[in-house]
Amino acid sequence: MIFTKKVLNHGFVHLVDMMGSDDRVLDAARVSTGASSKGAEQDRKLIEYLMKNRHHTPFEKIVFEWHIKCPIFVARQWFRHRIGSFNEVSGRYKEFQFEAYYPDEWRSPGDTNHQGSVFGVLTDSEDLELTKQLDFAYKTMKETYYNLLELGAAKELARLVLPMGQYTEFYWTVNMRAFMNFISLRDDAHAQWEIQQYAKTMRNMVTKTNRIPLSWGAFEKHGYGA
Amino acid sequence: MIFTKKVLNHGFVHLVDMMGSDDRVLDAARVSTGASSKGAEQDRKLIEYLMKNRHHTPFEKIVFEWHIKCPIFVARQWFRHRIGSFNEVSGRYKEFQFEAYYPDEWRSPGDTNHQGSVFGVLTDSEDLELTKQLDFAYKTMKETYYNLLELGAAKELARLVLPMGQYTEFYWTVNMRAFMNFISLRDDAHAQWEIQQYAKTMRNMVTKTNRIPLSWGAFEKHGYGA
Amino acid sequence: MIFTKKVLNHGFVHLVDMMGSDDRVLDAARVSTGASSKGAEQDRKLIEYLMKNRHHTPFEKIVFEWHIKCPIFVARQWFRHRIGSFNEVSGRYKEFQFEAYYPDEWRSPGDTNHQGSVFGVLTDSEDLELTKQLDFAYKTMKETYYNLLELGAAKELARLVLPMGQYTEFYWTVNMRAFMNFISLRDDAHAQWEIQQYAKTMRNMVTKTNRIPLSWGAFEKHGYGA
Amino acid sequence: MIFTKKVLNHGFVHLVDMMGSDDRVLDAARVSTGASSKGAEQDRKLIEYLMKNRHHTPFEKIVFEWHIKCPIFVARQWFRHRIGSFNEVSGRYKEFQFEAYYPDEWRSPGDTNHQGSVFGVLTDSEDLELTKQLDFAYKTMKETYYNLLELGAAKELARLVLPMGQYTEFYWTVNMRAFMNFISLRDDAHAQWEIQQYAKTMRNMVTKTNRIPLSWGAFEKHGYGA
Repeated sequence: MIFTKKVLNHGFVHLVDMMGSDDRVLDAARVSTGASSKGAEQDRKLIEYLMKNRHHTPFEKIVFEWHIKCPIFVARQWFRHRIGSFNEVSGRYKEFQFEAYYPDEWRSPGDTNHQGSVFGVLTDSEDLELTKQLDFAYKTMKETYYNLLELGAAKELARLVLPMGQYTEFYWTVNMRAFMNFISLRDDAHAQWEIQQYAKTMRNMVTKTNRIPLSWGAFEKHGYGA
Repeated sequence: MIFTKKVLNHGFVHLVDMMGSDDRVLDAARVSTGASSKGAEQDRKLIEYLMKNRHHTPFEKIVFEWHIKCPIFVARQWFRHRIGSFNEVSGRYKEFQFEAYYPDEWRSPGDTNHQGSVFGVLTDSEDLELTKQLDFAYKTMKETYYNLLELGAAKELARLVLPMGQYTEFYWTVNMRAFMNFISLRDDAHAQWEIQQYAKTMRNMVTKTNRIPLSWGAFEKHGYGA
Repeated sequence: MIFTKKVLNHGFVHLVDMMGSDDRVLDAARVSTGASSKGAEQDRKLIEYLMKNRHHTPFEKIVFEWHIKCPIFVARQWFRHRIGSFNEVSGRYKEFQFEAYYPDEWRSPGDTNHQGSVFGVLTDSEDLELTKQLDFAYKTMKETYYNLLELGAAKELARLVLPMGQYTEFYWTVNMRAFMNFISLRDDAHAQWEIQQYAKTMRNMVTKTNRIPLSWGAFEKHGYGA
Repeated sequence: MIFTKKVLNHGFVHLVDMMGSDDRVLDAARVSTGASSKGAEQDRKLIEYLMKNRHHTPFEKIVFEWHIKCPIFVARQWFRHRIGSFNEVSGRYKEFQFEAYYPDEWRSPGDTNHQGSVFGVLTDSEDLELTKQLDFAYKTMKETYYNLLELGAAKELARLVLPMGQYTEFYWTVNMRAFMNFISLRDDAHAQWEIQQYAKTMRNMVTKTNRIPLSWGAFEKHGYGA
């Protein structure tokens, strides 16, 4: 079941482990009424009913363990989700390998960019110029980071020059309820394009495990809290 | 791995499932420094270091799924623990089977019972009289509960006469960190004797699984937050 | 601002204190964009936008302190809400004054009582008979509770005979986001009638304080997560 | 009561508001036993008892509202504290004013820097060289950030070059229990020096308000969970 997908230029998502099943959700839902299963069709209907009516607690029986590598500006959006457990690389104790994110295509502010979601168009030469500037700045930061270390700065201070585009890594333990909330907010046109790629990838991976077809199917059909 | 233990006269604890391992804890701890394992002895030392210095987040990588049957007054103490997921029998939708808790031995208020933890001694005949009174009240409640249902009361109102000693059932998903907090507070002389029995039983069960010998061993040695 | 309302036969809700304001919500929302207020109409529109689009975090700036007295079966539903702080009377340390809830009107199971929300009708004489039975059982429990105490039982064991209809008291600290979630789930036809009365009363009280007219108005208009 | 203190070269902490009092803590503690106050000395003793024995829930009745300005690497440590509410400046919607942190004194890795807490000594000329390098990198990033914006990049992409030393701002709503946990972990020799300055400043500010002398005094005397 364990597998990995690449995201962006240096990132990945890795589904390390998973606990629970559709049966576990059904048990949790039915403990309240004391009912027992009346067959596959009724099971499917019950799970759809739970999702549609936002009885989300039974979905907390399913827990995911993820390993993620993403740019720091993406991680900063991720860590706002408080229900779940994070363990991240520390720039205090680990010397970072300088690895940074480059956009394939640059986005520019659009006419109606309320919430930043509609963007204007740039020409190829503008794209090229932006990437050149980004690359130059990244190279300066990289060089300075290693210089500071060599000159005797503690890692926790040398990192002052690491950019928001630098990659970081973390483990994330999260139950299905909080994960649905994450997916519904981050695989959404209002989210920044980069975190959307992570959310989309994880969404597909959960589908492909086929471990919770009823629960995940109900989420895909009814959404979370919409 | 899945097993069940009886607790009190009608209760049980059932370890339904478990996610994670000592290796998962080690991975989560080492992601911060980027270090890798240097053998079993170093692994043990790292886990002990984490526990002793209260770096508890890596232990959130381990998750338990429990199924519990206990009296309502015990469940009321249990549900005060907010980090974790509960799904409980509902007296609105399920007709309860009247089953109630009888103490084997009665406790009486002691001299210095600050926090109710030191108790006086009762004679056998006093014990007998208390049990007789309890039994009479329970029988009245039981009879009334079924009468109310038969006379047409909704389950959610008939239950008004169910006693705090009535048994209930629930599923509990909880990570190891919150579970250690529960065990340290409830397998403790200040906790009520009845919930202590649940905490002690679960503590032994986790030991017996032998699934997380380093992490659980470190907890047994250093305690949680003491 | 502090006031109290009676609920059910012996219960109450008391709004002890409140922190925050519409301005605080606006500050929290605008810190993200760095914008400043462009007048009252724009303020109202921004708060409505936040509510409608489920950007709920700025509403966490508003915090309520409540003091509640309600039957134990209602408190059990209440304590399932995990975001917030509860401090409740303890039957281990306090001798309860026996006070229990009597329904004014009994509800009976209806034809289509999925989720228990549609009920049948009982005659006056049926109502009378149900109340008589309830009263008899309550009296037995009350007498037994005091007998057990007098015969030397510890309070924590004497309470085994206290019914689910017994009143309890607690303080509840809760931010507006979690409070909206509570109100939307409990002032709802699917919730049990008794907890609906608490939710409705608190909803009116917050309206009457007029302390957060924009935020509360937006909730009343757009709902929470619907 | 509302006041502000500067921290580091461009940062601040601002105590916006506070809810609760020692009396509120006492009420919450005494609701469990039904006791009432027996004078100031008994009040002090009860609060000390709660703190010493880690009965921390009554302290959740006290809530703080803070406004913080700090470097991003400090904010990243801060946001790991999950109990509480954050609203932060967004680099997607707001053009940052480039403002970055410069250490007054550089720290270097020491002999026994387990957890990075013991540091070596640098000469003045080494300090000077490190600052020069940092300054050069900052200037490149600043220039590049504004260039990228001018060349048409969306703010959410231009920020890729902002350094971890860049300042950010946020509001933080937090109850006293979670705040004590923060202070005990961050005003500690194992925490990074920069976040220690924030924790020390906030600790002093709460003392100076003199709004919760008993509760804060008990924390200063007994610590949190130590």
